[in-house]
Amino acid sequence: MHALDKYAVDFNPKVAEALKSAATAPGHFPAHLGIEVEDAVPGRIVCTLAVRPEHLTPVVGVVHGGVLAALVDHTLSIAVYPLVEVGKWVATVEFKINYLGSVREGVLRATGSVERLGKRVAVVRVEVENDGAPVALAQGTLYVRDQPGA
Amino acid sequence: MHALDKYAVDFNPKVAEALKSAATAPGHFPAHLGIEVEDAVPGRIVCTLAVRPEHLTPVVGVVHGGVLAALVDHTLSIAVYPLVEVGKWVATVEFKINYLGSVREGVLRATGSVERLGKRVAVVRVEVENDGAPVALAQGTLYVRDQPGA
Amino acid sequence: MHALDKYAVDFNPKVAEALKSAATAPGHFPAHLGIEVEDAVPGRIVCTLAVRPEHLTPVVGVVHGGVLAALVDHTLSIAVYPLVEVGKWVATVEFKINYLGSVREGVLRATGSVERLGKRVAVVRVEVENDGAPVALAQGTLYVRDQPGA
Amino acid sequence: MHALDKYAVDFNPKVAEALKSAATAPGHFPAHLGIEVEDAVPGRIVCTLAVRPEHLTPVVGVVHGGVLAALVDHTLSIAVYPLVEVGKWVATVEFKINYLGSVREGVLRATGSVERLGKRVAVVRVEVENDGAPVALAQGTLYVRDQPGA
Repeated sequence: MHALDKYAVDFNPKVAEALKSAATAPGHFPAHLGIEVEDAVPGRIVCTLAVRPEHLTPVVGVVHGGVLAALVDHTLSIAVYPLVEVGKWVATVEFKINYLGSVREGVLRATGSVERLGKRVAVVRVEVENDGAPVALAQGTLYVRDQPGA
Repeated sequence: MHALDKYAVDFNPKVAEALKSAATAPGHFPAHLGIEVEDAVPGRIVCTLAVRPEHLTPVVGVVHGGVLAALVDHTLSIAVYPLVEVGKWVATVEFKINYLGSVREGVLRATGSVERLGKRVAVVRVEVENDGAPVALAQGTLYVRDQPGA
Repeated sequence: MHALDKYAVDFNPKVAEALKSAATAPGHFPAHLGIEVEDAVPGRIVCTLAVRPEHLTPVVGVVHGGVLAALVDHTLSIAVYPLVEVGKWVATVEFKINYLGSVREGVLRATGSVERLGKRVAVVRVEVENDGAPVALAQGTLYVRDQPGA
Repeated sequence: MHALDKYAVDFNPKVAEALKSAATAPGHFPAHLGIEVEDAVPGRIVCTLAVRPEHLTPVVGVVHGGVLAALVDHTLSIAVYPLVEVGKWVATVEFKINYLGSVREGVLRATGSVERLGKRVAVVRVEVENDGAPVALAQGTLYVRDQPGA
């Protein structure tokens, strides 16, 4: 059995579609930064970001680490939504990111893989690449709750 | 002796001033996001971000985690520049962030404190607060090198 | 008001005492490694470890990073027990540790400070020092649940 | 080309063999805890630990998180030694670990995979499993230097 097949049973394709639309809702942060949800399959989600001049650092002209961190955060934050019951809320508890290489142009592609999905706590790994080269590696924790703010 | 006094000898106020200007250089990411360098003293740097509608999440209307992560990344990335020899480059190796509370409006204030400054490796802690309430807690690693890209 | 006073209301001194005894229960890991709970006050716990030859690395003769990581893990794992209702279980979700300096002898002292205590999720920071010198800095997440294994 | 083939050129099998012997050198921490180096191939290292009663927690009778953290630390600390020039020193800068499941008996197997190996900074991921079940997931940073203590 493929490692991700165990998530197929609980996968809700309607939620996956809704995530794609929500990311591009105008006036909010993911759309402002340029994040799009490219793909969402059971246990895996892919977000992309096309590099723009406003993503660069003042001095060196490479993509600012904060852009990569924000892309990782967003990928992480939506990774388990298609796998949990509709109406549950998922809060990002924490994550850790290592920067592996710098980027000047093109598209950043972040792939989030669900490593553990318990009743309340999920662990997700995120890899970011640019034209096939590794850019960042992250690992984070989500908390699934019945309602917001709990 | 105050914990930060050990950094006073190497502190370069000109670099500290340059960081404040660089953050607001138009067209680049820190300025695009709205980050300002409010203060830079030996071993401690403070960055602020005034919350705007474009920083919010599509659904819940709180500041997106990616904004907080980007603010932490930027604070971390500049924290030791005033303490190292002019001409050295500082690369952010990694960081870890815990989200402590959500924010709807006002100003985010990130304080970076240098916990260790070796010849090549530095460790910095970042606390983010909003109107006195803790928002995020982070810890990261920097690598000091002689030139970019090494 | 002192930062830790907010935890005084919920502090259970009986649990704090029980933690001190449990650490030294023979035949289990904390005792095997030599960890003792030196102090437990509201929102802060201190664990110590006297360095022994078996804690050293094969080659360099300094305390092995695994000993420091284990000390951090234990300090983290018990930090909020005196603050939660008796009968609740606390699981360590994750932590991150930076190594700041090496140690050859003496006593390691790990201080765990509660940074956030929600209904279910707690964040704790741990600092390890040896004779006044910083040795490690860590930050971790705990999950409070009603019963084991949930 | 297999992802790890890029490390084959620099792989030093003599160092790999030396690591296996060093781990079991009596009187030091890895041997004391029971860690063995099972395998070392280019870009990947496997350490094992047979669970003993002294590895358990006082109360619940599962393997203590500190044992898992120590196993991760050791795996991480030796992962790039076979890939760097003989005489270089590798220091563990930091790591982050998520606990995925509890263990009562059997063998813990930690696999360290080199994700990035620069001239000075390396990033390694470590997965720990027990009888096929995931137990912990970690990500850490190493610093390669010319001599100890630099």
